[in-house]
Amino acid sequence: MRTVTVKTDRREQMIDVTSQVRKEVADSGVKSGIVICFAAHTTAAVTINENADPDVTRDILHKLNKEIPKDEGYHHGEGNSDSHIKSSLVGASEIVLIEDGRLVLGRWQGIYFCEFDGPRQREMLVKVIPCADD
Amino acid sequence: MRTVTVKTDRREQMIDVTSQVRKEVADSGVKSGIVICFAAHTTAAVTINENADPDVTRDILHKLNKEIPKDEGYHHGEGNSDSHIKSSLVGASEIVLIEDGRLVLGRWQGIYFCEFDGPRQREMLVKVIPCADD
Amino acid sequence: MRTVTVKTDRREQMIDVTSQVRKEVADSGVKSGIVICFAAHTTAAVTINENADPDVTRDILHKLNKEIPKDEGYHHGEGNSDSHIKSSLVGASEIVLIEDGRLVLGRWQGIYFCEFDGPRQREMLVKVIPCADD
Repeated sequence: MRTVTVKTDRREQMIDVTSQVRKEVADSGVKSGIVICFAAHTTAAVTINENADPDVTRDILHKLNKEIPKDEGYHHGEGNSDSHIKSSLVGASEIVLIEDGRLVLGRWQGIYFCEFDGPRQREMLVKVIPCADD
Repeated sequence: MRTVTVKTDRREQMIDVTSQVRKEVADSGVKSGIVICFAAHTTAAVTINENADPDVTRDILHKLNKEIPKDEGYHHGEGNSDSHIKSSLVGASEIVLIEDGRLVLGRWQGIYFCEFDGPRQREMLVKVIPCADD
Repeated sequence: MRTVTVKTDRREQMIDVTSQVRKEVADSGVKSGIVICFAAHTTAAVTINENADPDVTRDILHKLNKEIPKDEGYHHGEGNSDSHIKSSLVGASEIVLIEDGRLVLGRWQGIYFCEFDGPRQREMLVKVIPCADD
């Protein structure tokens, strides 16, 4: 298992971590298997989406904020219930397949660490699981 | 890894791919492990839900469209930001357990490929990971 | 694979199952790998979120109900389409990493079984996959 440190500089942000995950897979030497990317936080998440036009992630974050605003009469005293809700909806982890020693992603797919309560320094755990017959 | 081709014929559609996944598991000969179903697209997803009454998937797609309509002042120029948002909320992949060489699903559960920007020809990647002691 | 039985006593409820999952991992003897927690139901889910302040799960359930109410002109005759929709948005499963024989979770993270159509007796499947080199 490796820990990828992600430094965020806004309250909500999607940071492309595909190259860091690709490096972990290369370093592992695994030819066939899976890699799990896991946000070790309850107000963050990991997702896969388009990495070509930055307006895509901008639209995703804007829509999440519109539907799940920061202030809406929540009970949790820390004032970040919206961040917790987004975390459970987007999800703490993503799995990506490994074939021939490489990440298998669709043409437009990138892996994103999602910050919902920044800015902070965050940790994304990355673990490569080889196929038993690798 | 195998690629399951899914042909969709509407803009939004949930297609039951359980039998195709079951076939890949049987072909693999794996007795104990997991299978990952991964949508290699940023405007599609994979989910697990009821495969008995077709009104369930109809209600899911209708509600997603009601809350995340196609046109809502998004910035992304392609006009499919709603599809990208749905993709990240539903998620790119599902994992299902394999025991005694068979998929382990609850009584009403089926695996669905979710199209959010069709009609198109799509690819769902399926990879079986055996337990190390299989 | 083990089955963890979860008894719910409300229609919507998030039940902390971290200790049960921790026990399965310890019983497995696996030192390095992953554990998959899978809700074998189409009106339930599994998620990871804060297990310190109970107001967090209260806020999550309240917000889900506000946005996806029980009655909203759905077609599915059983009257639980909201539960099915929540199930696909939150997701049927979570993966957690195992290192040195222990679950790797962030400081505030707990694993929750999410009931969206209770009260019922439910089954969460737990499977530990060791690394090939464990």
